[in-house]
Amino acid sequence: MTAPDIDVLCIGNAIVDVIARVDEGFIEKHGLVKGSMNLIDEVRAELLYADMGQAIEVSGGSAGNTAAGVASFGGRAAYFGKVKADQLGHIYRHDMRAQGVRFDSGAASEGPATARSFILVTPEGERTMNTYLGACVNLTTADINADVVSAAKVTYMEGYLWDRPAAKEAFKLAAKIARAQDRLTSITLSDSFCVERHRESFLELIRNDIDLIFANESEIKSLYQTQNFDGAMQAIRKDCPIAVLTRSAAGCVVVKGSETLSAPAYPVNKVIDVTGAGDLFAAGFLFGFTANRPLAHCAQLGALAAAEIISHIGARPEVNLKAHARAVGLL
Amino acid sequence: MTAPDIDVLCIGNAIVDVIARVDEGFIEKHGLVKGSMNLIDEVRAELLYADMGQAIEVSGGSAGNTAAGVASFGGRAAYFGKVKADQLGHIYRHDMRAQGVRFDSGAASEGPATARSFILVTPEGERTMNTYLGACVNLTTADINADVVSAAKVTYMEGYLWDRPAAKEAFKLAAKIARAQDRLTSITLSDSFCVERHRESFLELIRNDIDLIFANESEIKSLYQTQNFDGAMQAIRKDCPIAVLTRSAAGCVVVKGSETLSAPAYPVNKVIDVTGAGDLFAAGFLFGFTANRPLAHCAQLGALAAAEIISHIGARPEVNLKAHARAVGLL
Repeated sequence: MTAPDIDVLCIGNAIVDVIARVDEGFIEKHGLVKGSMNLIDEVRAELLYADMGQAIEVSGGSAGNTAAGVASFGGRAAYFGKVKADQLGHIYRHDMRAQGVRFDSGAASEGPATARSFILVTPEGERTMNTYLGACVNLTTADINADVVSAAKVTYMEGYLWDRPAAKEAFKLAAKIARAQDRLTSITLSDSFCVERHRESFLELIRNDIDLIFANESEIKSLYQTQNFDGAMQAIRKDCPIAVLTRSAAGCVVVKGSETLSAPAYPVNKVIDVTGAGDLFAAGFLFGFTANRPLAHCAQLGALAAAEIISHIGARPEVNLKAHARAVGLL
Repeated sequence: MTAPDIDVLCIGNAIVDVIARVDEGFIEKHGLVKGSMNLIDEVRAELLYADMGQAIEVSGGSAGNTAAGVASFGGRAAYFGKVKADQLGHIYRHDMRAQGVRFDSGAASEGPATARSFILVTPEGERTMNTYLGACVNLTTADINADVVSAAKVTYMEGYLWDRPAAKEAFKLAAKIARAQDRLTSITLSDSFCVERHRESFLELIRNDIDLIFANESEIKSLYQTQNFDGAMQAIRKDCPIAVLTRSAAGCVVVKGSETLSAPAYPVNKVIDVTGAGDLFAAGFLFGFTANRPLAHCAQLGALAAAEIISHIGARPEVNLKAHARAVGLL
C-alpha cells in the first residue's frame, strides 16, 4: 500500500446555493421551520424562487464546503459529488478546482439539473434551507473511485446522502473500501431531521464503520432520542472511537474513549449567516487531524474556520484559512 | 398621450457578474489594465475563468444595475436586455423581477449563452472587468417595445451598447421613439475606452438626441479629448441640456445651462468593491429626477446609492434604498 496522497476525501451532494435575505414574514408565509433543511421538488423550487428576492449564487453543499475549507487550510482535499453538465454544474466544478480540491466525478449528461439550495437568511443570521437535489440523485456506487478512496487518510461523508438510496449505497461502499485499506472514515450527521429519518441505519453504520463522527447538539440528542446532552455524549463515547460534538456559541466537546476535552467557540463580531458553520468546523478539525495535531488544536482550527464562515454570506471561505490561522497564531 | 406609468426605462447588456478577489499579480499575469472594462471572446473567457479563484455569481450589467437601484428606491423601473433561455438567463430575469423591475424582453432560444462579466476585485476595491457579451449580441431593434418607451418618463441607455452595431441601432430607435413622445432621453458614457471607440457618434447622438448625460471625469475628458476637467465641463454644457459629472470621492458636478452645482460624495467606511458605483449613482439621481426633486437632492440620492454599492461585493443593492434614504433623512 502506498502512502496516502490525499488528506481528506469528502463525499456529498453537489449543490449551488441561491442565497437571499428575507424577513420573518417570508418564513411564516411559506410555512417553513427556521433553521431547518427541507428537501423540495422542482415545482416547489420554482414557486419559492419566484417569490424570493434578488439572490446571489455561491457553490455550496455540506461536504463540498468542507473540502473547500480543508484546501483553504493547505490540506490535500478531494471530492465526489454529482453535477449535471449545465451552467451551474460548470460553476460548481470551477469553484472546487479553483480552491485546489481534486474533483473528477463525471457530470450527468441528462436527467435533472445541477442541484440548488434556496437559502433564506433572516436578519439575525439564521438560515433556512430548501434543497432541490436535482442531479445529485445520480450519485451512485459507480462514482466511488476506489483509487482515490484508498489514497485518502480520511473519507468524510455527509449524512444528507442517506436521503437517496443510491447515494447511501455509494457512501457505504466508500466506507468499506476505506476500512479495507486501513484508512479512516468520518461522518457528519448533517441535520437532526435527517437523523430522525435514518436513526437506526445511522447507528448501525456508526457502530461498525465510522472512526470519527461530527454532530451538533440537536443531532446527537436526536440520534439517541434524549433531551440530555451528557447522556448522548456518554452513549456516543461507546459507539464511536472519536466524537466531535459542536454546541454553537458554547464551543465543542471532543470525546475519545475515556478522554473528554472542551474547546471554546472563536469570537465573532457579528453573525451574518450561519450557513456552513458545521461544515467549516469539520474542515478545520479534519485538516488538523490529518496533520497529526492534538485534538484540542484540531478543535481550535475548527472553531476558527466556523467563525470566519458565519461572519459573511455564503458557506465558502472568503479568506485563505491557512494565512488566517497563521495570523492569529494557530498555525 | 397617456400619463407615463414608468419612471425610468433602462436599456443595456444583460450580464451575470462572476466576481472573484485577486491579487495584483493576477492582473499583471493576464496583462490587464486595472479599472478597465475589456470585451473578451468565449475562448478567452474560459481561459480566464479557469485561472480565477472561487467566485460568486450576481446579476449585473450597467443599466440593469441602474434599473434595480431605481426600483429599490421605490421608483417604477423597466428594462430591455437580452439573455439566453439558459440557467444564467433564468437567474438574471428572476433577479430583475424580484427587485420589482418590469423585464419582458424575450430570451434568445439559440446562439451564445447569457453574457458573463468576469470581475476581478483587487485588495483596495478596484474592479477590472472582462466581459463576454454572449447573448447580448442578439439585442436588436425588435426588442424595443414602443409602448414601454412611450410610457417611460426617461429612457436611459448605457454607452456599452455602442459596441454592437445591432444594439446601437436599437438604442437609436428607442431614443427616437422617446423624443417623438416628448419623453426624456438619458445616456451614460460607461467607460473612457468605450468613448474612445465611439467618440464621434457619441457626440452626434448627445448633441441631437440626449437630454441628460452621466459621465465620470475620465469619460468626459475622453469625449472632448482634453486633460482639463473644467474645459470638458464647459463643452458638455453647450452640448447637452443637463450633464451629471461624477468624480469618485470628490463628489459630482451637475451642469444645466448656465447653472452649476456641486455635491459631495457620501461617506463610506471601507471601499470593498467599486463595481456599480456609477450605475447606482445614476439610479439615485434618476429616481430623484423623475420624482421632480431639485437637482441637488437628486445628486445626494445618487451619492447615497453609490456609497451603499461600494461598501460590499456586487453591484446590486443589499439594502432597500428607499428605507436607507429615509433612515438618513434624504427622503
